[in-house]
Amino acid sequence: MSQTTPAQPFYIRMHASDNVAIVVNDGGLPAGAEFPGEFVLNQHVPQGHKVALRELAAGESIVRYGVTIGHATRAIRRGDWVEEALVRLPPAQDLAGLPVCTVKEENPGPLEGYTFEGYRNEDGTVGTRNILAITTTVQCVAGVVEHAVKRIKMELLPQYPGVDDVIALEHTYGCGVAIDAPEADIPIRTLRNISLNPNFGGQALVVSLGCEKLQPARLLPPGTLPVPTSSCLVCLQDERHVGFESMITSILEMAAKTLAVLGQRRRVTCPVSDLVVGLQCGGSDAFSGVTANPAVGFASDLLVRAGASVLFSETTEVRDAISQLTARAANPEVAADLIREMAWYDRYLERGGVDRSANTTPGNKKGGLVNIVEKAMGSVVKSGTGTISGVLGPGEKLRSKGLIYAATPASDFICGTLQMAAGMNLHVFTTGRGTPYGLAAVPVLKVATRSDLARRWHDLMDLNAGTIATGESTIADVGWELFHLLLAVASGKKTWAEHWKLHNALTLFNPAPVT
Amino acid sequence: MSQTTPAQPFYIRMHASDNVAIVVNDGGLPAGAEFPGEFVLNQHVPQGHKVALRELAAGESIVRYGVTIGHATRAIRRGDWVEEALVRLPPAQDLAGLPVCTVKEENPGPLEGYTFEGYRNEDGTVGTRNILAITTTVQCVAGVVEHAVKRIKMELLPQYPGVDDVIALEHTYGCGVAIDAPEADIPIRTLRNISLNPNFGGQALVVSLGCEKLQPARLLPPGTLPVPTSSCLVCLQDERHVGFESMITSILEMAAKTLAVLGQRRRVTCPVSDLVVGLQCGGSDAFSGVTANPAVGFASDLLVRAGASVLFSETTEVRDAISQLTARAANPEVAADLIREMAWYDRYLERGGVDRSANTTPGNKKGGLVNIVEKAMGSVVKSGTGTISGVLGPGEKLRSKGLIYAATPASDFICGTLQMAAGMNLHVFTTGRGTPYGLAAVPVLKVATRSDLARRWHDLMDLNAGTIATGESTIADVGWELFHLLLAVASGKKTWAEHWKLHNALTLFNPAPVT
Repeated sequence: MSQTTPAQPFYIRMHASDNVAIVVNDGGLPAGAEFPGEFVLNQHVPQGHKVALRELAAGESIVRYGVTIGHATRAIRRGDWVEEALVRLPPAQDLAGLPVCTVKEENPGPLEGYTFEGYRNEDGTVGTRNILAITTTVQCVAGVVEHAVKRIKMELLPQYPGVDDVIALEHTYGCGVAIDAPEADIPIRTLRNISLNPNFGGQALVVSLGCEKLQPARLLPPGTLPVPTSSCLVCLQDERHVGFESMITSILEMAAKTLAVLGQRRRVTCPVSDLVVGLQCGGSDAFSGVTANPAVGFASDLLVRAGASVLFSETTEVRDAISQLTARAANPEVAADLIREMAWYDRYLERGGVDRSANTTPGNKKGGLVNIVEKAMGSVVKSGTGTISGVLGPGEKLRSKGLIYAATPASDFICGTLQMAAGMNLHVFTTGRGTPYGLAAVPVLKVATRSDLARRWHDLMDLNAGTIATGESTIADVGWELFHLLLAVASGKKTWAEHWKLHNALTLFNPAPVT
Repeated sequence: MSQTTPAQPFYIRMHASDNVAIVVNDGGLPAGAEFPGEFVLNQHVPQGHKVALRELAAGESIVRYGVTIGHATRAIRRGDWVEEALVRLPPAQDLAGLPVCTVKEENPGPLEGYTFEGYRNEDGTVGTRNILAITTTVQCVAGVVEHAVKRIKMELLPQYPGVDDVIALEHTYGCGVAIDAPEADIPIRTLRNISLNPNFGGQALVVSLGCEKLQPARLLPPGTLPVPTSSCLVCLQDERHVGFESMITSILEMAAKTLAVLGQRRRVTCPVSDLVVGLQCGGSDAFSGVTANPAVGFASDLLVRAGASVLFSETTEVRDAISQLTARAANPEVAADLIREMAWYDRYLERGGVDRSANTTPGNKKGGLVNIVEKAMGSVVKSGTGTISGVLGPGEKLRSKGLIYAATPASDFICGTLQMAAGMNLHVFTTGRGTPYGLAAVPVLKVATRSDLARRWHDLMDLNAGTIATGESTIADVGWELFHLLLAVASGKKTWAEHWKLHNALTLFNPAPVT
């Protein structure tokens, strides 16, 4: 039993019209548990799972978050556990006839007076870390580049205490792929834009094999970098390379030049508007939409009011909330862009013989989420209440500030990779089941949805939002705590993932074939 | 100028009916270079590129390897450089009406008297290395497992001098994917079968997150491993894990048990029939089909005669040779299986808006290969002349000995990953342009197609087949040399990739959508 769990039976209802609520108590509640004056549980209900607040006829709408998350497959009694088998998934919302720009945001005014210490780049972006990144055109060079990175860390990095890390931007793209396929632009622009991430200080070091499909000039066309690509390129097949060691020497020489530049950078005071914060959730449970995600939504509103860019993503997890999003669009073009991204993904999934319902995981279901509608309602809360001011296609680079829908799959690694390409310099990740997720290039601040997880994973979770479920904190309390913690991490405070050096693979979204 | 290049103009014609030949000389030959009694070059012809041996009318067949590799886009003079723009790609061979089992192999009899020293497993397979592999169900655990691997290498491995390495079977699958899509079986069975690779000694250590789609019981259903999966599983979300260090401790404890078993293994003398040799080429040039691949084909015939399993692959690189393959099929079922794999890949590419011509790379073209037909003719030579006795779908496990078509994309990393899943314990990789390719779990023996590459990459290439082009060696000479080297590497001799610890990422073939 957690120290923070209520001793008495306790449920959370999200909206006045909800006819189900979730059980909060650690370990769930047994059959016979009584909610005095309301009802008695007819079966054991696990933590985070739903209980019926009133009798429901077969076929009747099951309502949570004020939204129909499904229809009863048979009659349900008050006090019954509303498990997955009792909830029939509704069809996806029609993408025609959606409300557009119908929500007028109450303008709370700008949020002023907050800053962080960051690395300002020549192009106006700001880094939260100071990293030497080695761009690779193709997986072929990965072994050589990994060897070189080890040597750089041993032989060069100690001379540059102001540089945080040396990383290889390794990926599995670059050759053996249909590079002229209609959809190949997505992985290519993703890699290009990742190379331009603010945390790399406007510097580039590119390692190419030579014969690959993704030639350096195609990955980084003239004008992409401030310098000609040839001036920061090591090509392994170059005739001047005789023996393995000569390849390593070439990379080390180029790295020494780049480190000399990066080593000069110093943190300066920057306004919050220089933050580009990517939001994501993974290993979600029924508390995600009750605790962590609403707190992130609150912080998102603060960040947007302070002029920052906030990216929310995960197309299959907003698909069922599309009418809320088009209603919040800044203008009809943004609404049309949102619809375009949803329609594209609908077709992409259909081509593979599946639909949005392929999203939910065994862990989601164990955590109480019966289907993608319920998951989506909890996921989209991360975006707060602000006006949606722009939409990015997968792998596109940020063009404006404010709350942006960056269209990505919901896969944690693909989403994080695409948000990095958009220019993210700070990442917030909420989790209910628990994941050690991290990125090598951008600090990831992890928020637990439940106190039990935060306690057990005390040195992996950066913030506990579970106190919201038990009434110990409000959404605003945790939202403000997150906001302040974000500024601290942006200024150099290490996250737990950074402390342990935990990071996941760059994972490209390639909807085109491999050859 | 290479020491091994002929001083006089020199070309290679592959077949009596060829009307083009490739220039052998390093650096190519200038306009005016004379082939006495034959013709004079009308333009500079780069090394490996084609020269017309006679006048060709517009539309006439251009023939190399005795096969029409394309049609002349305009009239071509004798002595002209037959560059890419002059060759129109022919349509793909119809998959109906192909010759079936029409080639009767001259039976040279079994090859006896050759053995190697390997690690015999309980299931009858034989390892060429003795490796502790950590299977992961999902990318989420990668950071934790990498940390654990470092600790195992520091704290435990030194106690087991007979164990070669500790590796994480890291991949980007496992969650955020449409796991019930019709084609999801391919990545799942690939991961399952990789865990059973002979080089892991029949031992397993599985790390799971807990909430992922690819649950341990789905990855490794009961009966897959000799022991219950639960007895070799560490699940990070298990309630018993409190803090990061407890996760690492769990993995280290499990690793210590597995190392104790692996540490007992000793090499024993094994017949060549215990080898499972995967063949692949990458960074190909016009010499691939003249030098390295024919030598590999010769060695392949020797291996098959000695009872080994030989896997050849790369669907887009055999598609244009399908009539040769169906003709060499052991029986009509094998021919039908070959056709089924080609047809499946045709549809897969078509769905993505491309066709087999998406295969060739800038490096292939620079190396003289004008299109996929010419590349395929050079690639399929690796399979030698033997009867094709079986076909594996992508990621399937080997069921029989002999020459097997293991259907895979041609992407080097995906092909290597799928051949590992088939049960490969030794890998041969030919390259013309040069690649530092390697695998963590299986030794990769690299063969250079040109002496110039072998000389410059002297500590990355394991064998030089370039001497065949200059007449210094025969195909049989290099084929036998490769055969002997394969037995030495199988017995423990390190390849250059192993010496430098160069290896590429496991790269799954997932034709299904991500979510």
